[in-house]
Amino acid sequence: MRFLHTADWHIGKKLHDFSLAEDQTAAFDQIERLAKDYQVDAVVIAGDLYDRGLASEQAVEQLNGMLKQLNLNDHLPLLAISGNHDSAARLATGSEWFETTDFYLHTTLASAFEPVTIMDTQFFLLPFFNLQAVRNYFEQDVKTISQAMTLIVDQMKQLFDPDKKHVLVAHFFAAGSTHTDSEIQVEVGGLDAVPTTLLKDFDYVALGHLHNPRALNEERMRYSGSPLKFSVSEANLQKGVWIVDTNPFKLTWAPLQPKHDLIILEGSFDELTQGKIAAQYDQTQDYVAIRLTDTKLISDLMNRLRARYPKIVEIKRPNQQDDASIATMTMASHDPLMLLDEFYEKVHPDQQLDDQQRQWASAALTKVEEEEN
Amino acid sequence: MRFLHTADWHIGKKLHDFSLAEDQTAAFDQIERLAKDYQVDAVVIAGDLYDRGLASEQAVEQLNGMLKQLNLNDHLPLLAISGNHDSAARLATGSEWFETTDFYLHTTLASAFEPVTIMDTQFFLLPFFNLQAVRNYFEQDVKTISQAMTLIVDQMKQLFDPDKKHVLVAHFFAAGSTHTDSEIQVEVGGLDAVPTTLLKDFDYVALGHLHNPRALNEERMRYSGSPLKFSVSEANLQKGVWIVDTNPFKLTWAPLQPKHDLIILEGSFDELTQGKIAAQYDQTQDYVAIRLTDTKLISDLMNRLRARYPKIVEIKRPNQQDDASIATMTMASHDPLMLLDEFYEKVHPDQQLDDQQRQWASAALTKVEEEEN
Repeated sequence: MRFLHTADWHIGKKLHDFSLAEDQTAAFDQIERLAKDYQVDAVVIAGDLYDRGLASEQAVEQLNGMLKQLNLNDHLPLLAISGNHDSAARLATGSEWFETTDFYLHTTLASAFEPVTIMDTQFFLLPFFNLQAVRNYFEQDVKTISQAMTLIVDQMKQLFDPDKKHVLVAHFFAAGSTHTDSEIQVEVGGLDAVPTTLLKDFDYVALGHLHNPRALNEERMRYSGSPLKFSVSEANLQKGVWIVDTNPFKLTWAPLQPKHDLIILEGSFDELTQGKIAAQYDQTQDYVAIRLTDTKLISDLMNRLRARYPKIVEIKRPNQQDDASIATMTMASHDPLMLLDEFYEKVHPDQQLDDQQRQWASAALTKVEEEEN
Repeated sequence: MRFLHTADWHIGKKLHDFSLAEDQTAAFDQIERLAKDYQVDAVVIAGDLYDRGLASEQAVEQLNGMLKQLNLNDHLPLLAISGNHDSAARLATGSEWFETTDFYLHTTLASAFEPVTIMDTQFFLLPFFNLQAVRNYFEQDVKTISQAMTLIVDQMKQLFDPDKKHVLVAHFFAAGSTHTDSEIQVEVGGLDAVPTTLLKDFDYVALGHLHNPRALNEERMRYSGSPLKFSVSEANLQKGVWIVDTNPFKLTWAPLQPKHDLIILEGSFDELTQGKIAAQYDQTQDYVAIRLTDTKLISDLMNRLRARYPKIVEIKRPNQQDDASIATMTMASHDPLMLLDEFYEKVHPDQQLDDQQRQWASAALTKVEEEEN
């Protein structure tokens, strides 16, 4: 069989106050087009369908419309799981009825052990989970995500039909991955990564969580990445989906074209407002991250740049030591490790946190978060 | 055919900080039992399934479980509409799939003109609507709910199958109704009532909105009322559901027994804490509204009464002119008309607002609300 693997739609997400609804609809239309052109037998969505557990009415209508289009209008089987950004309870609404039309939306750990068979393949749909859910389900103490995944995979393997291919759909941080800014919770909640060796018995692992499709380069374990660039750190990534053939196994990358791109423009204030860059990008509808090379103070900076670039999502001044005078907006990401990095760099301008220090900080943050839960 | 008519479940509602989840489950269990015992062919839920548009995860799970139980486990056709307390957009999630198992959940005005036929009856499911939706749908100016309903009913009648019975399921304030405290929005948004004469061509009108099942006593138009007492003004109402036979037409009232009742206890502080009432109701798990007849100031009143009656939802002191010294809690309802009534009574202790004055005030409030929207 052949399926399309996507994830991290984050419907309802805003990019620094700019709604992405239109961009998301445009990306969805391309995904639908690809599903038809490649004549796939199913579409896999590996978590984070919504950006927030409490999605707005607009986001609810948008996602409902997309799922209806794929499943009821295009008659495509859907295989989806809840991610860490979704409210599993809310997302589950209607899921028992969805199965009447081959739309399998799994939001509980227990449902990961109810494989869905489509043609030659058994799909195991493992939603985002926390350790407590694993402790409750297996009735034993579990201290790390690796321990949890060992139990989970063992149980799945007992359900393997030897005549079928076996695909895992999951939403977590797999070991070895590099990552981008917009997966905030990865670093805090999921630092304790899943080693890819635990997943080797699957014919393919369709992952969600990281927005970079190259975050993992195992032949048979992939992140699809998000359909859109959700942070400046993703500016240079190509977005797309995987088309996966199960027999013989084959992986095909199908890129998506953004309706509005996210670009980084670097230059002096004069270059950005009067020079070549200004001429080329004047009134661009792309989302723009500015790298301002001047060191002098510039009055009314944001408004003057916005007159040229209406959708500025970030301004950074790499040559200015004390950038307190302008809003860098990076605070908005609220990622504790990133903030720690930035703070450390301020205090020790010549060095960065080393790996050991980052590990200590992460462990401490994970502990704090566990206690909060 | 025979169907069960209920409405105004308000899942997620709290009674002055006390969760009603357990009471709602108990009422639901009885409704399910009645549906089975009476061997009904369908269950009608006439709006306000949730108490709030943004229901909590717990409320979402509770309602999802109830709907699944009736439709997927008991195989009962369901006919439901969104009420003014529901978010139509959120409630609509999954509705296209629900129809595969005869669960019809209508949340848009347009869908009111897609009658659902079950056995000998055409059901017209009209969700709660505002005038703007009617203007948009019919592309003409509409000033009152009566005008709107004239257009709506005319369009429905064009769809009448003469060989069938015709049942309207709706959620609004029908003329002639008396009402209780917990339907806050009725008085503000819906004062412009629907005259029952407009609805005379239906064989039965299954209404939601008012919590008193006797609010309307037309033979073929009824409010089912809420399954639970949601305010002190409902303390003396009997709750239940209607069992409706279409041919020959027959209406049967089936009462529900509350797991915890809502009762009014009146007496002096001494009677309530040491006398006969105290002995009879000591540690009652019912919700209690206190009518305290003393006029003197009593220190630490609430805590001392709660030691006896753990679930006090209101204290009123009918004999005390100046009751500012204790929390009467009626402010919590935030119903502008009720507050106006109370204020007027304070200023003119011997008279109440007359009908003309109430009408002026309501019209003003409706206008303000329309402008806010």
